This record gives sequence, C-alpha cells and structure tokens, in this order.
Amino acid sequence: MPESARPRLTPAVADVRRAVRESLPVEGLVLVALSGGPDSLALAAAVAFEARGRAGAVVVDHQLQDGSDAVAERAAEQARALGLDPVRVVRVTVALDGSPEAAARDARYAALADVAAETGAAAVLLGHTLDDQAETVLLGLARGSGSASLQGMAPVAGPYRRPLLGIRRSTTVQACADAGLEPWADPHNDDPAYTRVRVRRNVLPVLEAELGPGVTEALARTAEQLREDEEAFATMIDEVAEELAEHIDGGLAVPVAALAANPAALRQRIIRFVVASEFGVSLSRAHTLEIARLVTDWRGQGPLDVPGVRVARTGGMIEFRARIAEEHTDGHG
Amino acid sequence: MPESARPRLTPAVADVRRAVRESLPVEGLVLVALSGGPDSLALAAAVAFEARGRAGAVVVDHQLQDGSDAVAERAAEQARALGLDPVRVVRVTVALDGSPEAAARDARYAALADVAAETGAAAVLLGHTLDDQAETVLLGLARGSGSASLQGMAPVAGPYRRPLLGIRRSTTVQACADAGLEPWADPHNDDPAYTRVRVRRNVLPVLEAELGPGVTEALARTAEQLREDEEAFATMIDEVAEELAEHIDGGLAVPVAALAANPAALRQRIIRFVVASEFGVSLSRAHTLEIARLVTDWRGQGPLDVPGVRVARTGGMIEFRARIAEEHTDGHG
Repeated sequence: MPESARPRLTPAVADVRRAVRESLPVEGLVLVALSGGPDSLALAAAVAFEARGRAGAVVVDHQLQDGSDAVAERAAEQARALGLDPVRVVRVTVALDGSPEAAARDARYAALADVAAETGAAAVLLGHTLDDQAETVLLGLARGSGSASLQGMAPVAGPYRRPLLGIRRSTTVQACADAGLEPWADPHNDDPAYTRVRVRRNVLPVLEAELGPGVTEALARTAEQLREDEEAFATMIDEVAEELAEHIDGGLAVPVAALAANPAALRQRIIRFVVASEFGVSLSRAHTLEIARLVTDWRGQGPLDVPGVRVARTGGMIEFRARIAEEHTDGHG
Repeated sequence: MPESARPRLTPAVADVRRAVRESLPVEGLVLVALSGGPDSLALAAAVAFEARGRAGAVVVDHQLQDGSDAVAERAAEQARALGLDPVRVVRVTVALDGSPEAAARDARYAALADVAAETGAAAVLLGHTLDDQAETVLLGLARGSGSASLQGMAPVAGPYRRPLLGIRRSTTVQACADAGLEPWADPHNDDPAYTRVRVRRNVLPVLEAELGPGVTEALARTAEQLREDEEAFATMIDEVAEELAEHIDGGLAVPVAALAANPAALRQRIIRFVVASEFGVSLSRAHTLEIARLVTDWRGQGPLDVPGVRVARTGGMIEFRARIAEEHTDGHG
C-alpha cells in the first residue's frame, strides 16, 4: 500500500482536510462518492484522515467506457488502502436515450442513495470543487437567468455534502501528488462533445484572460451568494404565499393589494410560487411579468393564458385557474 | 436634410420607437445623450418622433481624439435635422490620470447633468442597449460577485433613463440604416485596450459559441432580475436596520438574536449596511462572513478587526466601533 505509506502534511493536503473537517457530520458513517479522479481521491484521503473509523466509499461503475470495471476496482483498492471501510463498487446501467450526462448523473445518485440507505450513512460526500461550481454557473447561464439559474450546486442537499466547493481543482491534484496517490484521468473530461468540457477548456480561460484572474473564484462566490438570496426569498415566499392565497373554485386567488405592496422581486416570486405549487407549472420570466402587469399596469386587460393556467384580475383579486384540456392547444402563452 | 426625408416604419424602427414610448416621462423636455454612434442616433430618431416638440440633444465632445469637434458637430447637425431642439454641444476636458474610461464617463455625466439642470429637462435618455448590459454584467464579474456586482445598468437612475436596455445593438444599427441615418463609428469601440471592447469581441462570441445562442439575452435578463432582488433586499434592510441598530458609545450595536433570526442573505446585508452607513466602509464578503460567524458560529471569539471597524460580541449584542487611527496599521483584516 504505497499510498498510505506516505503521509505528508503539505499545504494542499491541509487545505482539503480543513474543508472536510468543517463539513463532516458530528457522528455516523460518511461515504465518499469516489470516481478515482483527483477531486474525489483527494476527498477520500482527507475523509479517511478526518473521519477515521467511520468513513467508507462508493465507487459507481457507469459501464460507459471499455475497462470501466477495472477503473472502478482500482479506485476501490485505493479507498481500501486509505483505510476506508466499507468500500462498495456499484455497477449501474445508464439509459442511452436523452442526455447521456443527465442519465449518468441520475444512475449515479440512485446508486449512492441505495448504498447510503443500506449502510445507514449520515452523509454522502461529493468531490465537486470551486472550478466545478464556476463551470456550473456558466452552464446555468445557458439554461436561464437570474439567481435561480446561477446558484450552482448546493453545499448541502439532503444526505449529500460538497466539502470542496471552496477548493480549487489544482489543489486536489496537488494533494493527490503530495500524498503519492495516482488519480485516474477520465477521458470524458477531455471530450469536447460535453458542454462542461468546452466551458472548462474554452470559456473559462478566455474569461480569465480578458477579465483578469479571479473570475473563476468570482463565479463560485456568485453562486454562493445567489443561493443565499434564493433561500431568503424562499423563506419569505413560503410565509407570505401561505397567508395570501385563498382557494377558489378551480384554483387560487391572491389579493391585488398584497401583490402591489411587495417589491417586484417578491411579487414575481409569489406569482411563480402560486403557479408552481398549485398547477405544477414553471413560469417563464416573460409570462411572470405579463401576470405582474395585471397588478402594476392595470388597464382592464382580459384574462391571460399561460401554459396550463388562466389568470384574470377580478375585483381586488388575481385569480389563477387551471385551463381545461382543449384550451391547451389554442396557441396562447 | 436627407435623414428626416426618409421616414420608413420598419420593424427595427418600430422596436426602438416602442421602447422609447414605454419609458418617456409623461411631460417635460427630454434630452438624448448623443454620441453619433448607432445606438444614440437610433434613440435620437425615435425620441424625435415619440416626443415631438419636447425633445433635445446633448453632444459631449470629450476631446480625446483628433477631429472630435467635427464628429460632435456632425452629430449635432443630425439631431437638428431630426427636429430636436435644443441641441447642445458641450466640450469637456477629461482627466488623464487614472482610468481613462472612468474619467471620460465622469466628465460626460457631469456635462449631461449641467445641461439637464440648465434646460430644466425632465429626463436624460441614454442609448445603452441589451448588448451593453450583457457586457456590463461580465465586467461586473471582473470586479466582484453576487447580485450587487452583476446587476448591470439601471433602467432609471435619477434623471437618467435607458430605454434601449431590451433592444439589441443590431436593431439600432438596422434602425439607422432603415431611416437613412449614417452613424459615426467610434474607433474606441474597436480598440482592444479597453476591457469592454475585449468582452464584446472575444468573450461574448465564445460564450455564444460554447453555451449556445441566447447567452447575451440571458446575461441582460440576469441583470434585470438581480437588480430587482437587490432592490427588494434594500427595502427590507432599510426597514430592519433602522429598527435593530442601537447607538452605543463610538458606534452601533445590533442584537444577536435579531441577526440570528434572519436568513443568511439578510443577516449579511444588515451587517454590510450597518458598517457602510455608520463607518463608510464597504465590507468584503470574507469580512462580512467573519462577522456573521460571531452570530452563527459563536465559540467565544475575541473582537474582530476589519478595515476601519472593530466588531465584538458582548452579551447579546454585536457591537461595531470605529477603530482608532493607530490600530489601522496593525495588519489585521
């Protein structure tokens, strides 16, 4: 076991350990989701040190590349050499229709959840770094806008924790080298067919070159702050919407005066919340603003049809009602 | 006057006019800040149409390029040909120490404010487009993070209005062509010495190529939403901080319990607000979080020194006091 035979406390190793220490649950088994790459391998080494005696690993073999079983087995051996126990290798089958990245992610999280349930783990630790977070913010920009799209990955979500969101990828690579650990280089990480790979290789270097160094950190800090903002709004909306919304025949109604009294950011979130919670529809910004104008720019507009929902101002109320099936094809919204 | 002789209502002209119509003040003189470039020239043409009889223009000659007086005079002639009145050319001297972009901007806004005051204008309209807004968001990323840095330019700020923030630059170019207006091509707009020019020419095309078309619009929508979010938080903080903060000898104190009861996004903004309003200091995120940990992660820490301010938890209060001069050099914070 050459890996565990070389315990050198270098700055990189210390940084990763400190990040892990600050996010470990107080007690209970912690599982590392280990791919064998530098991020999760550095994480595994730090967890083995910081949570000695209560740390295990799950290696998911996605079976998407030739020899993936050998890669998984090697990662499992590294985990055992680090003293992790239990170490499980889970073979999953990834659906090949739709987005391969999304399908692989779904299969991976299902496998992690299974092992966590089976072992009664208190937490599953994921190796996502600050660089991953910055990439996620930029990928979010491709899908939408505003704080909901740009908040990146959560540091804590259910059983999952991401202790390394404040750690650069270069630090995990260094930590592995310092510890004599040889990480696996996933060829998918260099495949420009993946948008994330192109963001890493083409977009972030251009941003750093033209805007100055520190953009990657700024994107990660942005994610952190926007996530806090969204959480604060979610708390407020939860409280407010409960109080405001009244059940009516076929839907919900919210008083115009209450919507008018709130700042735009809250008014729009209340509208989105009501529609999402009652009708399961995620409104676009354009539709949300159209509904908001029933409050802020009232000129006697007729009912608005947005996907799945008809919205009308009647008396002092904004009424939201499900649209009946045949109305769904009328081309509105 | 060949320009005004060709009134063609094309889609581009209609888009610019509609945007102007929606942001005109109800009455009073409106001034267009006119450089002669396509954005402000298309704006001037639309304002001449939509606010006929109460629309003027200000052309600022920054005297930074040879022949700038001729460029300004030509823009002024175009404005007069469009029927704008009054049309003023203001020659300014730009300080050459520090950032030339910032100095030119300061000189320009000072000149605009002077003419607005002198003419009693109700509003000064600026030609910034959706593309400018997207660039501003990316430039904000170079300077900081979170919604405060990424909120771009305000659609309305004091006397200034930016009617074209939802209009693409390509539309203003087209609107000028459709109206037979010949805009001036500012060589500074192609000078890669300016970060904004590099963002336009190098960064946004890469983002569009790798993340998909629509990124420019997504950045502009992000600015709009983050500005609304900041405004909502500002309203709340204003109310909350007034109530919470108590004057103490040499500073202010805020109850721990009140800070603890608020979500992180509000707690941190209250801390920043108290320090900014009382001591004129803009706290970094790192310092803000350090202070917040006196609330959320209390382990009997001693006083914290951040730039200009000493912060201590005493009893149930977080106390903020100005640091005396000799403490400023002690290397803390």
